[in-house]
Amino acid sequence: MKIIAFQGEHGAYSESAAIEYFGSQIETLPCESFETVFEAVEHGIAHQGIIPIENSLAGSVHQNYDLLLSHSLHIVGEYHLRIQHCLIGLPGAKIKDLQKVISHPQALAQCRETLKRMGISHIEPVYDTAGAVRLLSHQSDPTVAAIASRRAAEVYNMKILAEGLEDHTANFTRFLILDREPIDPPHFQAKTSIVFTLINRPGALFRALAVFALREIDLAKIESRPMIGRPGEYLFYVDFLGSTANNVVERALENLHEFAPMLRILGCYPSHPLPAP
Amino acid sequence: MKIIAFQGEHGAYSESAAIEYFGSQIETLPCESFETVFEAVEHGIAHQGIIPIENSLAGSVHQNYDLLLSHSLHIVGEYHLRIQHCLIGLPGAKIKDLQKVISHPQALAQCRETLKRMGISHIEPVYDTAGAVRLLSHQSDPTVAAIASRRAAEVYNMKILAEGLEDHTANFTRFLILDREPIDPPHFQAKTSIVFTLINRPGALFRALAVFALREIDLAKIESRPMIGRPGEYLFYVDFLGSTANNVVERALENLHEFAPMLRILGCYPSHPLPAP
Repeated sequence: MKIIAFQGEHGAYSESAAIEYFGSQIETLPCESFETVFEAVEHGIAHQGIIPIENSLAGSVHQNYDLLLSHSLHIVGEYHLRIQHCLIGLPGAKIKDLQKVISHPQALAQCRETLKRMGISHIEPVYDTAGAVRLLSHQSDPTVAAIASRRAAEVYNMKILAEGLEDHTANFTRFLILDREPIDPPHFQAKTSIVFTLINRPGALFRALAVFALREIDLAKIESRPMIGRPGEYLFYVDFLGSTANNVVERALENLHEFAPMLRILGCYPSHPLPAP
Repeated sequence: MKIIAFQGEHGAYSESAAIEYFGSQIETLPCESFETVFEAVEHGIAHQGIIPIENSLAGSVHQNYDLLLSHSLHIVGEYHLRIQHCLIGLPGAKIKDLQKVISHPQALAQCRETLKRMGISHIEPVYDTAGAVRLLSHQSDPTVAAIASRRAAEVYNMKILAEGLEDHTANFTRFLILDREPIDPPHFQAKTSIVFTLINRPGALFRALAVFALREIDLAKIESRPMIGRPGEYLFYVDFLGSTANNVVERALENLHEFAPMLRILGCYPSHPLPAP
């Protein structure tokens, strides 16, 4: 059985993403940190890992971009998970009796308006969403509820009191699938993720993008980051639609390498469309 | 006295940024959420507001980009704050007696290695860093410490047990200063922040960046985001070095507007350099 490493504990959104992506015929391996996920794959403790890379409300997870750079794993897939927060209570709990809601601060913040409308003002942060449900299951207080995924409720045999608690339905997280070895680049609907550095000169990025634009290669994402401690140098993350198996893409990357001091292909994998909100 | 709205409570990193930026001759107004900061400035309850927009480890705060779009405030300044986490205890506390450390999950994560080296394994999340210090001050347990800013220790008359707890010194947050009215665009060392949309066609971004590159206008930041629920449309945030008072910049923006369905100038303000780590 394929072992997939994820950060968090059973019931975490990363685990839901793994199950939606791979199907239920996998074994999921909870890891304490994102770094542990990378290490688990590197050391062969897990076959593959899954990490969140950007959330539509919160933004990019720079830490995971840094880990992609400092480790040598390959991106072999992506998945967009719609984040749907559930209000979860003990089997006997009722919404009208609730006095406190616990969850990760980010989840609590994403449900603030809904909780206010429900008349719940007493909220308390805990380490993660699935951990909140585990905590709930260890207590026997029906006036406390947790905010977490549907799966977290199932894992701990708790009751879903309400679904779709998030204030904004356009709440998605993009996950990347990591492996020790790259896959054969797909020929159709491929996405390629690269990272490169440029010396900061007016028009440097323009010239870098020219290598794609002049070959009609479509960009899916671009993000720049100043390299702290190295003034004037910038790191760029670019996702483009196209396969490294394609000659045109290959030439574009060769061309980029002529003036990008560092260029690394993080992976070429089947692209997964952004779902409707 | 100038009133500056910030998210969090007294002692928050946003408040430190406000004091470093404005000097101590201001009154700081704690707000529950980022949205409340925008509203406080809009309704004249505060003269200006300060919000974090990106952290060197965690990435961009998309929520604040969204709020910049949904409100009509102007960016009038920026500031880079070096995030230096302190270990804070009761006046009589000693590191060797510590049994638990509390803080915001993000701060705890950023100090994980250091805490491990100190032999502290019992950590507990709370809502925010300054709130952890307030909690500490209400208890009288010298075996508990909090991780927060130097200022939070001062606000609550607590003792700094150790400084520079963060695992990575390259930990900076960029803050934006917001006002109801734009300032007169500076003539030197100006930075301009814009947001625009593009219809997703191969080379669309390349053409958009051409309006800057062909005029030798230097980009400082670029970030793209798919517009959820509107497939094929992308939102771009661009910061460039240059003043809207400059004719060349003015023509570049007119040129961009020819094919960007939406273009908004979020502000033109004096640029603040990224400090050394």
